[in-house]
Amino acid sequence: MKTFRTDTYGGIDSLILQHAEPPGALAAGQVRVGMRAASLNYRDLMALAGQLRGPKEGLIALSDGAGEVLEVAPDVTHIAVGDRVALTFNTGWLGGPWRPDPTCLTTRCCPLQGVMQEQMVVQHSELVLLPEQLSFAEGACLPCAGVTAWHALCGERPLLPGMVVLLQGAGGVATLGLQLAKLFGARVIMISSSDERCQRLRALGADETINYKTVPEWQAAVRDLTGGRGVDLAIDLGGAETIDRSIAATAMGGRLAPVGLVTGWPNTVSSIFTASVDITPVRVGSRDDFQNLLRAMAFHGVQPVIDRHFSFEQLPEALRYLESGKHFGKIVIDF
Amino acid sequence: MKTFRTDTYGGIDSLILQHAEPPGALAAGQVRVGMRAASLNYRDLMALAGQLRGPKEGLIALSDGAGEVLEVAPDVTHIAVGDRVALTFNTGWLGGPWRPDPTCLTTRCCPLQGVMQEQMVVQHSELVLLPEQLSFAEGACLPCAGVTAWHALCGERPLLPGMVVLLQGAGGVATLGLQLAKLFGARVIMISSSDERCQRLRALGADETINYKTVPEWQAAVRDLTGGRGVDLAIDLGGAETIDRSIAATAMGGRLAPVGLVTGWPNTVSSIFTASVDITPVRVGSRDDFQNLLRAMAFHGVQPVIDRHFSFEQLPEALRYLESGKHFGKIVIDF
Amino acid sequence: MKTFRTDTYGGIDSLILQHAEPPGALAAGQVRVGMRAASLNYRDLMALAGQLRGPKEGLIALSDGAGEVLEVAPDVTHIAVGDRVALTFNTGWLGGPWRPDPTCLTTRCCPLQGVMQEQMVVQHSELVLLPEQLSFAEGACLPCAGVTAWHALCGERPLLPGMVVLLQGAGGVATLGLQLAKLFGARVIMISSSDERCQRLRALGADETINYKTVPEWQAAVRDLTGGRGVDLAIDLGGAETIDRSIAATAMGGRLAPVGLVTGWPNTVSSIFTASVDITPVRVGSRDDFQNLLRAMAFHGVQPVIDRHFSFEQLPEALRYLESGKHFGKIVIDF
Amino acid sequence: MKTFRTDTYGGIDSLILQHAEPPGALAAGQVRVGMRAASLNYRDLMALAGQLRGPKEGLIALSDGAGEVLEVAPDVTHIAVGDRVALTFNTGWLGGPWRPDPTCLTTRCCPLQGVMQEQMVVQHSELVLLPEQLSFAEGACLPCAGVTAWHALCGERPLLPGMVVLLQGAGGVATLGLQLAKLFGARVIMISSSDERCQRLRALGADETINYKTVPEWQAAVRDLTGGRGVDLAIDLGGAETIDRSIAATAMGGRLAPVGLVTGWPNTVSSIFTASVDITPVRVGSRDDFQNLLRAMAFHGVQPVIDRHFSFEQLPEALRYLESGKHFGKIVIDF
Repeated sequence: MKTFRTDTYGGIDSLILQHAEPPGALAAGQVRVGMRAASLNYRDLMALAGQLRGPKEGLIALSDGAGEVLEVAPDVTHIAVGDRVALTFNTGWLGGPWRPDPTCLTTRCCPLQGVMQEQMVVQHSELVLLPEQLSFAEGACLPCAGVTAWHALCGERPLLPGMVVLLQGAGGVATLGLQLAKLFGARVIMISSSDERCQRLRALGADETINYKTVPEWQAAVRDLTGGRGVDLAIDLGGAETIDRSIAATAMGGRLAPVGLVTGWPNTVSSIFTASVDITPVRVGSRDDFQNLLRAMAFHGVQPVIDRHFSFEQLPEALRYLESGKHFGKIVIDF
Repeated sequence: MKTFRTDTYGGIDSLILQHAEPPGALAAGQVRVGMRAASLNYRDLMALAGQLRGPKEGLIALSDGAGEVLEVAPDVTHIAVGDRVALTFNTGWLGGPWRPDPTCLTTRCCPLQGVMQEQMVVQHSELVLLPEQLSFAEGACLPCAGVTAWHALCGERPLLPGMVVLLQGAGGVATLGLQLAKLFGARVIMISSSDERCQRLRALGADETINYKTVPEWQAAVRDLTGGRGVDLAIDLGGAETIDRSIAATAMGGRLAPVGLVTGWPNTVSSIFTASVDITPVRVGSRDDFQNLLRAMAFHGVQPVIDRHFSFEQLPEALRYLESGKHFGKIVIDF
Repeated sequence: MKTFRTDTYGGIDSLILQHAEPPGALAAGQVRVGMRAASLNYRDLMALAGQLRGPKEGLIALSDGAGEVLEVAPDVTHIAVGDRVALTFNTGWLGGPWRPDPTCLTTRCCPLQGVMQEQMVVQHSELVLLPEQLSFAEGACLPCAGVTAWHALCGERPLLPGMVVLLQGAGGVATLGLQLAKLFGARVIMISSSDERCQRLRALGADETINYKTVPEWQAAVRDLTGGRGVDLAIDLGGAETIDRSIAATAMGGRLAPVGLVTGWPNTVSSIFTASVDITPVRVGSRDDFQNLLRAMAFHGVQPVIDRHFSFEQLPEALRYLESGKHFGKIVIDF
Repeated sequence: MKTFRTDTYGGIDSLILQHAEPPGALAAGQVRVGMRAASLNYRDLMALAGQLRGPKEGLIALSDGAGEVLEVAPDVTHIAVGDRVALTFNTGWLGGPWRPDPTCLTTRCCPLQGVMQEQMVVQHSELVLLPEQLSFAEGACLPCAGVTAWHALCGERPLLPGMVVLLQGAGGVATLGLQLAKLFGARVIMISSSDERCQRLRALGADETINYKTVPEWQAAVRDLTGGRGVDLAIDLGGAETIDRSIAATAMGGRLAPVGLVTGWPNTVSSIFTASVDITPVRVGSRDDFQNLLRAMAFHGVQPVIDRHFSFEQLPEALRYLESGKHFGKIVIDF
């Protein structure tokens, strides 16, 4: 079977297309999946560059994938051949709060292998069933970006209708976060890098948008939009360059959910005391989060925004496109 | 000023229209409200019949009202003359879980006096500001029915988009519960007593309805609608005649929120063990619940369904109409 | 290897000691455990009598066991040969609230096989490490009774120091519940069937005890002990004959955690409305609960109360002793 | 009656002892308290120096006090003349999570007046009943320091037996935090400024102590004591000079509760992303917190540590002693 991997962790240039033996016979509790689609996340670039703890023997690329069930172990009764499934990102975090336990430390594409392989064998608990209206490509958009957005929105505290949420950019977490926050009845304020992208975000449901290139003090603009109060929940997707402003845009008693690192790791965060804001880091989310997300998307008929499809062989090109930051929504690989 | 009261707790027939002195000078923290509207709840009938613990000196009728601020004590800085306000039902329950504390035991219209009086003086914490798009009559619909529905939906556990909620009938809690559950992105199944009422509930947003007259085993129909699984949250509004079926319609691990007593107090509840359902009684809700409710209604432009308006003097007629059970939504008194 | 099983689900009399092949080679994520001890729970009697959903091919007895790690799959890095472990009861419920999901429906000794076998191969996530001061026998007391007690105490709401807890009897859940509730700083009131047992419970830490044979209206006595208020948490261990009294002994706004069925399944429960008590069924608990329990027991040096040890071959005798209800604490099988 | 106040916010030197008229007649819901004791907190120094938002007309000193009920309004039925009470710090925060609402923004001694006055009239909800075994002086130790410690321990997430808590110094919050954490069954690690103080903290119940003068890299020592894992909860009492080390001493998935400002406001906080720690600021706590605290102290017979008593007239001397940082526990004023 085809795989796409790096042996040297030398980034995109070190990726090689390689044939490998498909996985062997199933053990108890296991399921064989024929992979049909994958999606790209910013952290895949870090994984390929060796910035995350990958396997010594080299790494198969990408964490997020979906496919079709080809075979199930006899003791697995709730999954059947032909079922359409997505793989979870945190393979052992099934529910409840995250904890520093071995079951919560196994994540796809570092330290575990990635999904750019035509066949995978996994435990049944690593799979969620895709609802009918999501294609393989759409299902592959969710394990990391969708579950992160969902958990950031409601994993720590309930998000109530009428609350105000701040999101940043127009990548996978931002667009999915917007679509999901609207399902909760929240008001969504977004910042993005151009009037054109702001316009597209409003078309997707954003209540208000701010172009942070033309309004560099966007945190003040967010305060203005909320009558001086600030937002109830700020999902920080930028990292070093945004986190202080995100805090400044959050209401006293509100919450900041740091997710992103696109502009680097923040070394220091100011004003925690004066802001009086809770800070709750997001570690993607659990299998329960994923199932709740899928139930909500199915009921409301929500589809992830896919910017562009690439073929299996085009993975390096797809990753360079991701790196460019020009996408709006998710970038997908069709197997 | 005019008041409408009973001295004998003899039910509707014992109500008398009486003039009384308006309340005296304000103490610290107090606010004077010119009442403009009130709404009726089923429990008002119980209060007037002496079934709740009312004041010995007799009871001014109705728990739910809204009005205009006429005067504020000098130390109250966040409320101004002219503000439009509603009164809270649990006057001392400001937030958090309910507890058997003196601050949580004071509720309007037993043991406290009701709102059928032209002027009231209350602590500032007993008032919430009405958003612009709600009239006095609409604001008066919320203290009991609206806050009960809100708390039942999200007071104990977060309600997530895509979850399934069961509601019963077409009274104030049912119609507001429906409107609010839709803001959370929930799927709402309702039972009602006629095809015509079912039709109106669907027009108001209900996803599915069941006529319980023609489908007396409606709990089985609810199971069918949910693929055999049952609902995530059943808000029982009927009491004695519905509670067992409500439990039977709820998914394992789901929740039953008993609210209503329209058909009497349930003496026994079967199948708690086999059902594996959490049961969390609802005691209306807190001031926080009310504010969160208003924020949500304001953002989404939701208006309570008002079946009919009566004048101050028509209170007995309005209560008899409530008793008839023919209303759809709330019954309102305009001052 | 030796196993103890029933092929006919005919209760204790149908148990047979049988030799079987040890489990084969390990798959990814698996661990081989040499079983060293097991403990008995009331539900084991129900399982052997076919009252729970057991495997068609017959059932190996008992759900709770502990042992020594004999072999680990190469990808399991946090467990080593020689580690002392206990098996979890809910093998797929790792954390968070219970949910009707396939991962939460697999429990030891129905529908899964039991632990009366000398060697078992399980997923690494089905094991918890025993702290040094717990023997295999003591560790084997915990998967069902200890985790149930822990989850009942704090799984739904935090248990705070100074809160009052009601426990019943002197079996495994009762004695472990008592020991654990004291670690939380709670005040513990217990009812039991004789003055002698009451005396032993007080020696184990119970703050107050009531002999329910001589005080059949014990719920009134509990109210008296709490100044009329009732307890904050009642863990009902009796079932049909105790649940109504347990509710009557609970404070308004308090919680009832139904666990037990010793006196049968309750058909009806009265007074739910008047009691204003939350009811939260207990389904043992998660792996997280188990780990939190072990951390607490290790820090405080708590040991389960073991009434009597039996040998592997004495299983039928041990089960009959359990059936007699004469035990105080746990009954253990040493392999 | 005597009062101790500043008109100029010029710090301790600006304090004047002044006679004033006692408060006038009671309004509905009010209670008159004859003050009997007060206690000092670090923030009192900031209040007197004008660093908090005090009343324009000048400020009566100190936020924390206790006394005896002298008179109650006729509608207040759960408090009686002669009852021993303490005043709450957050007068309008009765329960639930803190929120930026007018009811949650009124705190004693900025913006409200302080307690250094012989008689006060307050709303009944601003009072909690002292259990018998606490003296007025001991009760006066709790409104700020005790409730802060309690809320930091369990206000956001339950604190479970066996969890590890880090506390700093030997002031009121630190000593009360230690005593309370032990009631929860937690393991407590403390840092302090001398071996002698460390010794006293261990005598009070601390499991391990670190002298931060001789071990400046104390965060590493804390890690060592926890097997490299870090603590579950760090209550930061130092501020600018300790917060980064507090984060470094906290386990992944653990929680940092910033309370203190003794060493100034932190301008920047590093390593939030790498630490993967929740940060939840503490704003003292609610009336519910206070009542739960008192129930726990009453049941366990815990008394606050009082370092020294001063008379009403010695307030300036007492404040200078506080400023010196030489105290161990609380400093009290007896009226």
